[in-house]
Amino acid sequence: MSTQPSKEIEIFPNPEPGRDYEIQMTCPEFTCLCPKTGQPDFAILTLTYVPDQSCIELKSFKLYLWSFRNEGHFHEAVTNRILDDLVKACRPRFMKLVADFYVRGGIHTIITVTHQQS
Amino acid sequence: MSTQPSKEIEIFPNPEPGRDYEIQMTCPEFTCLCPKTGQPDFAILTLTYVPDQSCIELKSFKLYLWSFRNEGHFHEAVTNRILDDLVKACRPRFMKLVADFYVRGGIHTIITVTHQQS
Amino acid sequence: MSTQPSKEIEIFPNPEPGRDYEIQMTCPEFTCLCPKTGQPDFAILTLTYVPDQSCIELKSFKLYLWSFRNEGHFHEAVTNRILDDLVKACRPRFMKLVADFYVRGGIHTIITVTHQQS
Amino acid sequence: MSTQPSKEIEIFPNPEPGRDYEIQMTCPEFTCLCPKTGQPDFAILTLTYVPDQSCIELKSFKLYLWSFRNEGHFHEAVTNRILDDLVKACRPRFMKLVADFYVRGGIHTIITVTHQQS
Amino acid sequence: MSTQPSKEIEIFPNPEPGRDYEIQMTCPEFTCLCPKTGQPDFAILTLTYVPDQSCIELKSFKLYLWSFRNEGHFHEAVTNRILDDLVKACRPRFMKLVADFYVRGGIHTIITVTHQQS
Amino acid sequence: MSTQPSKEIEIFPNPEPGRDYEIQMTCPEFTCLCPKTGQPDFAILTLTYVPDQSCIELKSFKLYLWSFRNEGHFHEAVTNRILDDLVKACRPRFMKLVADFYVRGGIHTIITVTHQQS
Amino acid sequence: MSTQPSKEIEIFPNPEPGRDYEIQMTCPEFTCLCPKTGQPDFAILTLTYVPDQSCIELKSFKLYLWSFRNEGHFHEAVTNRILDDLVKACRPRFMKLVADFYVRGGIHTIITVTHQQS
Amino acid sequence: MSTQPSKEIEIFPNPEPGRDYEIQMTCPEFTCLCPKTGQPDFAILTLTYVPDQSCIELKSFKLYLWSFRNEGHFHEAVTNRILDDLVKACRPRFMKLVADFYVRGGIHTIITVTHQQS
Amino acid sequence: MSTQPSKEIEIFPNPEPGRDYEIQMTCPEFTCLCPKTGQPDFAILTLTYVPDQSCIELKSFKLYLWSFRNEGHFHEAVTNRILDDLVKACRPRFMKLVADFYVRGGIHTIITVTHQQS
Amino acid sequence: MSTQPSKEIEIFPNPEPGRDYEIQMTCPEFTCLCPKTGQPDFAILTLTYVPDQSCIELKSFKLYLWSFRNEGHFHEAVTNRILDDLVKACRPRFMKLVADFYVRGGIHTIITVTHQQS
Repeated sequence: MSTQPSKEIEIFPNPEPGRDYEIQMTCPEFTCLCPKTGQPDFAILTLTYVPDQSCIELKSFKLYLWSFRNEGHFHEAVTNRILDDLVKACRPRFMKLVADFYVRGGIHTIITVTHQQS
Repeated sequence: MSTQPSKEIEIFPNPEPGRDYEIQMTCPEFTCLCPKTGQPDFAILTLTYVPDQSCIELKSFKLYLWSFRNEGHFHEAVTNRILDDLVKACRPRFMKLVADFYVRGGIHTIITVTHQQS
Repeated sequence: MSTQPSKEIEIFPNPEPGRDYEIQMTCPEFTCLCPKTGQPDFAILTLTYVPDQSCIELKSFKLYLWSFRNEGHFHEAVTNRILDDLVKACRPRFMKLVADFYVRGGIHTIITVTHQQS
Repeated sequence: MSTQPSKEIEIFPNPEPGRDYEIQMTCPEFTCLCPKTGQPDFAILTLTYVPDQSCIELKSFKLYLWSFRNEGHFHEAVTNRILDDLVKACRPRFMKLVADFYVRGGIHTIITVTHQQS
Repeated sequence: MSTQPSKEIEIFPNPEPGRDYEIQMTCPEFTCLCPKTGQPDFAILTLTYVPDQSCIELKSFKLYLWSFRNEGHFHEAVTNRILDDLVKACRPRFMKLVADFYVRGGIHTIITVTHQQS
Repeated sequence: MSTQPSKEIEIFPNPEPGRDYEIQMTCPEFTCLCPKTGQPDFAILTLTYVPDQSCIELKSFKLYLWSFRNEGHFHEAVTNRILDDLVKACRPRFMKLVADFYVRGGIHTIITVTHQQS
Repeated sequence: MSTQPSKEIEIFPNPEPGRDYEIQMTCPEFTCLCPKTGQPDFAILTLTYVPDQSCIELKSFKLYLWSFRNEGHFHEAVTNRILDDLVKACRPRFMKLVADFYVRGGIHTIITVTHQQS
Repeated sequence: MSTQPSKEIEIFPNPEPGRDYEIQMTCPEFTCLCPKTGQPDFAILTLTYVPDQSCIELKSFKLYLWSFRNEGHFHEAVTNRILDDLVKACRPRFMKLVADFYVRGGIHTIITVTHQQS
Repeated sequence: MSTQPSKEIEIFPNPEPGRDYEIQMTCPEFTCLCPKTGQPDFAILTLTYVPDQSCIELKSFKLYLWSFRNEGHFHEAVTNRILDDLVKACRPRFMKLVADFYVRGGIHTIITVTHQQS
Repeated sequence: MSTQPSKEIEIFPNPEPGRDYEIQMTCPEFTCLCPKTGQPDFAILTLTYVPDQSCIELKSFKLYLWSFRNEGHFHEAVTNRILDDLVKACRPRFMKLVADFYVRGGIHTIITVTHQQS
């Protein structure tokens, strides 16, 4: 398995596809750059999902988040982008991503994006 | 972009209008004046909304809140006023504003105002 | 405006009667007497309401609570009494009062009373 | 009124039987004995109820809990027993009892029992 | 009763099968091994269930959890496995297991599995 | 023993006068009146002392604090006064009183007074 | 080893008598009776000591504390008594006992007793 | 007494000049302007002092802090300035001022200034 | 570098031996067995030291703690043993180890051992 | 003033060099790379210092910390390096830097480095 940052997300077969259950993964170490000023932004990400046929591999998730480190992204766009990538990779029954960004301009921003399998 | 207090609220296009998602912005630095005594009031504001076609620009939101600094406003009225201005500026699908005012007369007041797109 | 304890509750016109919104006022300084022993009782009161045509004036609310200071009241009765007085004064769409009394006999009592406009 | 432990629970007339409201009483001082080993068990009890015609008298509730001090009871059984006794005494519209027992064998047990007036 | 780790779960008759009530048992001392690296994993387990005819014996639950100490298990699989074993042993009306694993690779994982009697 | 408010403080013989040890008593239920406005003030009092020949009787301490309920006192003066009365009553080797007053004018005041046996 | 309450405290040889180190044992399950009213009192005990030749055996400490369950003791006296018994049993270089009693009469009492090897 | 912002600090005679004791006043509502950008800054101020012949009058302290509302001041300078003004007004035996400023540029600044009577 | 449990502790040269500075490493995942009953014990270990010529390598420290997993050790002895091994490996100027063990028999034990370079 | 990452630290004259006072700046957004694996590390930095003739400019401090973002550094070395750079830039009377790193390998590391003007 790679140990380099990568937009590829590895999955593994859900060991209990016959049951709806929830997996939550919290990463307090997300950082990317502001596309306007180039300055670093930081966020605590909390992903919650109900797997269908596949689960997200933990180390691969870490490397995926690392891949944003030197890229410019707006808060609203990057939160939607990460959810989209994760949904595409593991096709969950339900997925929610909460991005809790550090204070900028005296204001603390939290963005919550949700996906429901149709 | 201006760096002066202003009642104008800037917006930018929602990067993901096809999905309902939530943005929360907390500002612990709101202050205005009491219209009866002229003395300063302080509040922590928490805005939560589901954008439709537009999002509120963070710096502009800060300058908008700053514009109340030397104006007299009653607690109930100013909370409704801010919600009204923000709704008019970005036409959200849903918006909630919580104004948590500091203790006055031994009493701690919190006002919660909500708007639902019809 | 009076600065003496009083059972009269002053109101002012709701600045936004066209919208349902919530006002919460917490007072950690309520005290009355036990009607059996005459000893002081203490409680933290939290009032939450949705105003209709009128709002409760903050200073008047403080003086109203002060008026119980040297009166004897049972926990259950005084909580219902305060809600009744406040409902009569401002005719809210909804009102809830939580009275969180200090430990007596090793037991911590919290009483919650609710009114819904019919 | 007695000041000795007793399984008798005193009640008094509900001062506001025309309204559904909630009373919560928390007692962090419950102790009984393990029926297998004879060793003391400890729990924090939280009782929440909606009175009908009667309320539970606070001091009597304390003496009732005290009466378990030197009796042997299993966790699950004693929690149901206390709820049953209290329901019989005051015939509430709703009652919930949460018994939060101290750690035994590295495991922390909480039991929640509920009664609904039929 | 044995004092050795064992996959056998002892039960005892529910003292109040006529009522739906909830039992919660939290164990902060769960440990097993990672099947890929052989390194120890740690979790805080919280089990919540509504018993039907049987309850789980506390000491037996402790010995059951102990039996995983030197076995290799993936997070998702072991959480589902423990729920399955407990459901088979006591046939509850409802059961939920939350496994809160310690940080690995900067990511904190919580898995929640639920069973409903059909 | 009286059950009425009283400036008399009862004492009992220190059971261990040969050893320096510390007694701390916290009372969150102190209230008196503001001598300028007549409005109620509230404080949490924490008394810490090393007894010499006498200890302060707990119920008497409660009645002593109750005696201030309808008297007017400035924050600084009443804190010193209580310490003086307690020192005179029990002649401790060391005594400290912390009075933590509720917010007035947006300002939270804490007063700490200490006595050392000479 | 006995499993009955007992005033006998068992000790075992300090495995590292050549070094000063500290052992802290906290027991939230201490209860005795009030000698005046016969009612139960509860406290959290925290013992901290530097062993000399002997350490206090954990299970024996639990049974020792249990032995106070049905005895009447004043707060100040029982705290000194427990320290005295423990000092006599294990002759520590230093020992401190903090007894944090539950609220009585609206007052929360903490007693701290210390012994220094001479 | 004035109710307008003012750099004049009123004092009153220390009721107990024969004893060293400590007064702490916390104000979470301090605001001034950044002298470079003109934007508002916010801080929580905590003043601790041992009075000599005079104490600081609470309402006057509030009006004094209010007087900085529309003035430009650097963090380090304004904290020293306030301490200097307060020392000059009441000549305390000891005084400490802690200014805890809100986050700017992702950095949280706390400044602590102390004065000792020589 | 090995990835197996080992009593060998790897070190690396202190990058700043000319300065006294402090390194703290907290591991919430320590477990060993009770030598009397064979049952698992758990503790949170906090190591604080001032390095001299060598620092403790983080991964090696983890593998060292892992090596106790299936060994029997008394609380007091194992805490002293770990300190001794670490002192021997890196010869620090100062070292302190705090072992915070999980509740056993209703008692929570914390052991603190310190070494000072002579 | 630059808005790019830079190892240059700007200073400004201390407005009160005649007094010893303390400035604390906390930055929760420090990140660099592990020199062995290239993976990102994260830390919360807390700097406390007593300025002599110069103070550290806040924005410049932020840009300085940013400059480590894509560099490889060991925990112990980078903490000492930052202290050295800051001491060289502003020659403080006293300075302390605490670097609180995120969990790696199940271990949480905090490094504290101090400088005293000689």
